[in-house]
Amino acid sequence: MTDHPAPSPAGRPRPVPDGAPDHPDPLAARFRRTWDALAAIGGEGAAGYHRFAWTPVDLALRGWFQEQAALRGMAYERDRNGNQWAWWGTPAPGAVVTGSHLDSVPGGGAFDGPLGVVSAFLAVDELRERGAVPSRPIAVVNFADEEGARFGVACVGSRLLTGILAPDDARALRDGDGVTLAEAMLAAGADPGALGRDEEALARIGTFVELHIEQGRGLVGLDAPIGVASAIWPHGRWRCTFHGEADHAGTTRLADRRDPMLPFASAVLAARQVAGEMGALATFGKVRVHPNGTNAIPSRVDAWLDGRAPDAATVGKMVGEITAAAEAAAAGHGVRVEVVAESSSPVVEFGVELRDRIAATLGGVPALPTGAGHDAGILSAAVPTAMLFVRNPTGVSHSPAEHATPDDCVTGITALAAVLEDLACR
Amino acid sequence: MTDHPAPSPAGRPRPVPDGAPDHPDPLAARFRRTWDALAAIGGEGAAGYHRFAWTPVDLALRGWFQEQAALRGMAYERDRNGNQWAWWGTPAPGAVVTGSHLDSVPGGGAFDGPLGVVSAFLAVDELRERGAVPSRPIAVVNFADEEGARFGVACVGSRLLTGILAPDDARALRDGDGVTLAEAMLAAGADPGALGRDEEALARIGTFVELHIEQGRGLVGLDAPIGVASAIWPHGRWRCTFHGEADHAGTTRLADRRDPMLPFASAVLAARQVAGEMGALATFGKVRVHPNGTNAIPSRVDAWLDGRAPDAATVGKMVGEITAAAEAAAAGHGVRVEVVAESSSPVVEFGVELRDRIAATLGGVPALPTGAGHDAGILSAAVPTAMLFVRNPTGVSHSPAEHATPDDCVTGITALAAVLEDLACR
Repeated sequence: MTDHPAPSPAGRPRPVPDGAPDHPDPLAARFRRTWDALAAIGGEGAAGYHRFAWTPVDLALRGWFQEQAALRGMAYERDRNGNQWAWWGTPAPGAVVTGSHLDSVPGGGAFDGPLGVVSAFLAVDELRERGAVPSRPIAVVNFADEEGARFGVACVGSRLLTGILAPDDARALRDGDGVTLAEAMLAAGADPGALGRDEEALARIGTFVELHIEQGRGLVGLDAPIGVASAIWPHGRWRCTFHGEADHAGTTRLADRRDPMLPFASAVLAARQVAGEMGALATFGKVRVHPNGTNAIPSRVDAWLDGRAPDAATVGKMVGEITAAAEAAAAGHGVRVEVVAESSSPVVEFGVELRDRIAATLGGVPALPTGAGHDAGILSAAVPTAMLFVRNPTGVSHSPAEHATPDDCVTGITALAAVLEDLACR
Repeated sequence: MTDHPAPSPAGRPRPVPDGAPDHPDPLAARFRRTWDALAAIGGEGAAGYHRFAWTPVDLALRGWFQEQAALRGMAYERDRNGNQWAWWGTPAPGAVVTGSHLDSVPGGGAFDGPLGVVSAFLAVDELRERGAVPSRPIAVVNFADEEGARFGVACVGSRLLTGILAPDDARALRDGDGVTLAEAMLAAGADPGALGRDEEALARIGTFVELHIEQGRGLVGLDAPIGVASAIWPHGRWRCTFHGEADHAGTTRLADRRDPMLPFASAVLAARQVAGEMGALATFGKVRVHPNGTNAIPSRVDAWLDGRAPDAATVGKMVGEITAAAEAAAAGHGVRVEVVAESSSPVVEFGVELRDRIAATLGGVPALPTGAGHDAGILSAAVPTAMLFVRNPTGVSHSPAEHATPDDCVTGITALAAVLEDLACR
């Protein structure tokens, strides 16, 4: 709640909603109802959401999507790459597509992904309520496996759709239990044999607009409830493996050890320092220790480095310096370091024309960049693409504490409806 | 194989065995047969042994023990705490007991534990073959859950037997999946309600002798195939929890982060430095990161510190300094550190009288200390206890590379038989 409600960017005055299902504002009430049904899936209380691709939780999320399509009489389909579509109008080239994803990181928040899908369905409701008549089809999409939490590669659904990820590479991806993506899809009743660039599905996308909670405090600083994306920083993931030698922690002299934990620790500290010097971001968020026994010197430490910067040259320089620091530390301990790029995304500059048109439709909202990757970043190489951000009061993301106010969520839906009306109903 | 076979410490000349099942030396052949049957259980090839308490693998190991007892016509029993016993003679107070454990660390070697149990059975065979007549009972024992790999506390079977570990505390121990020891025992067909100090079983132990592969290169340096333990260093395990805040790795400014990985890394480096300065050992071998996502700043890092030193004061001082370094690093990142002692073992000085008697029986083998905890260390507080060490050419332990030569294993069996004969047959 706020004392000074943000002006509606769609120009439609609206009371401050509190998000209760029986709220006098029908959109706020509908948002709350739709949101609550989805929020019940895959949450683990204070431990946050665990919604991983092709798990039973994912199937429940997919069921929710299918039900939302059915409730609205929208034609439903799952494409060859596992992405879900709900159509208002007959699927055809040139459609205006909106949506996001429903999966999460481990211990994720409720908004990253789902807010874009929920807002998409409710924006369709808004247009229908006001009697808008689309001149081209409108589709809501749920992209498969955006976070890459299970198989290590982000945006698998959109990468496959656009051909950036080869089907054989995708099928061979393995989760932490050694299950391949192909096996996981089969177990979930999907056909991994059909994966691959989908010309027909791509051709139908005339424009893609993804609404997403902001993952930072840019809009807070600008005192704006919504904004439009200017760019996505180039970023990537590197698997750093430190090969040492397992031994007994209680009996092996320090001088005789080849303990991979030590150069890993040096790499963690080096990453922070180098990133700070370069105005970039570097994070070790995922670690696997082998054998991971209290009284065993590890044989190996696998650690994943997430690196981002405003430009690709800086990302490359940063990862090079972190690698050099890791190798220098490893050499002193008889440990071998191996650094493998698992994924790499170039800088995305969203098209200025579409971005300006959207900002104008919304009465001049600000444009801002992000360090987070999105399906919109993948699609931008193939079709005109834009993103709307909804204000995040704390900036916290990928955490149960991730949050947007009901007011701002409703403002986002209204804005998305205005954008769809402008793009599809004229 | 060695060009210069070690002299038999029992004074019995013996050819250099190669350990083949059809080896002309019957003890070497019997060792190989007995060993191979056990070695097939719970191994994962190059990933080493994964033999954790009360798992199906543990039940298979227990079945092997029961079968070995039956093959020799030894009376078998499982005591209230899950330890297995095989008796030559009627169970009675004053018995000479030998054995070790069959469980392993994750990715462990074949020798740590099993060598002591296999050697115990084969030493009984040796005595019987030579017509020895025990004047008191001899028992072979397999202590439950020595490594503590599953439930985090080492030597659970011997700690319960001697009353050092309270039954309620034991039953409530949880493994990484949240399963309690009580639940695991029930699932394995054992009764957790009967756990606790076992006066009857304790009273039966007149003397305990544990044979074990050395976990270091002390005997290599002394050019001796076997030795006797002088002491076990005091040691303990501390769970260090670094509480930070989960956030998105791609969007959270470095200055806004509360990343627990950074002070953990500082603690790892501090532990090595402090241990080196104090002539002690400190190891971070086990780490759990939450949520452990590539693009998520962790909310929490749990790391286990294993600390050992020649005396308890040094252990305490070392852990204090490592904790102080961790807290200093954490304060700079808005991270809170919590250090909890999970287990602590005082120094064990094995009785000089028994040790000297054994060394004399074996023709004057060397005595040496160890940093590794053992069931013998636990029992030493309750009954006269000694340990025999078998040479480890590389010193590597808790690793698939752990190794003793067949020659040295046979030398160990022969030595153990001589010790049992001296203690039980006079």
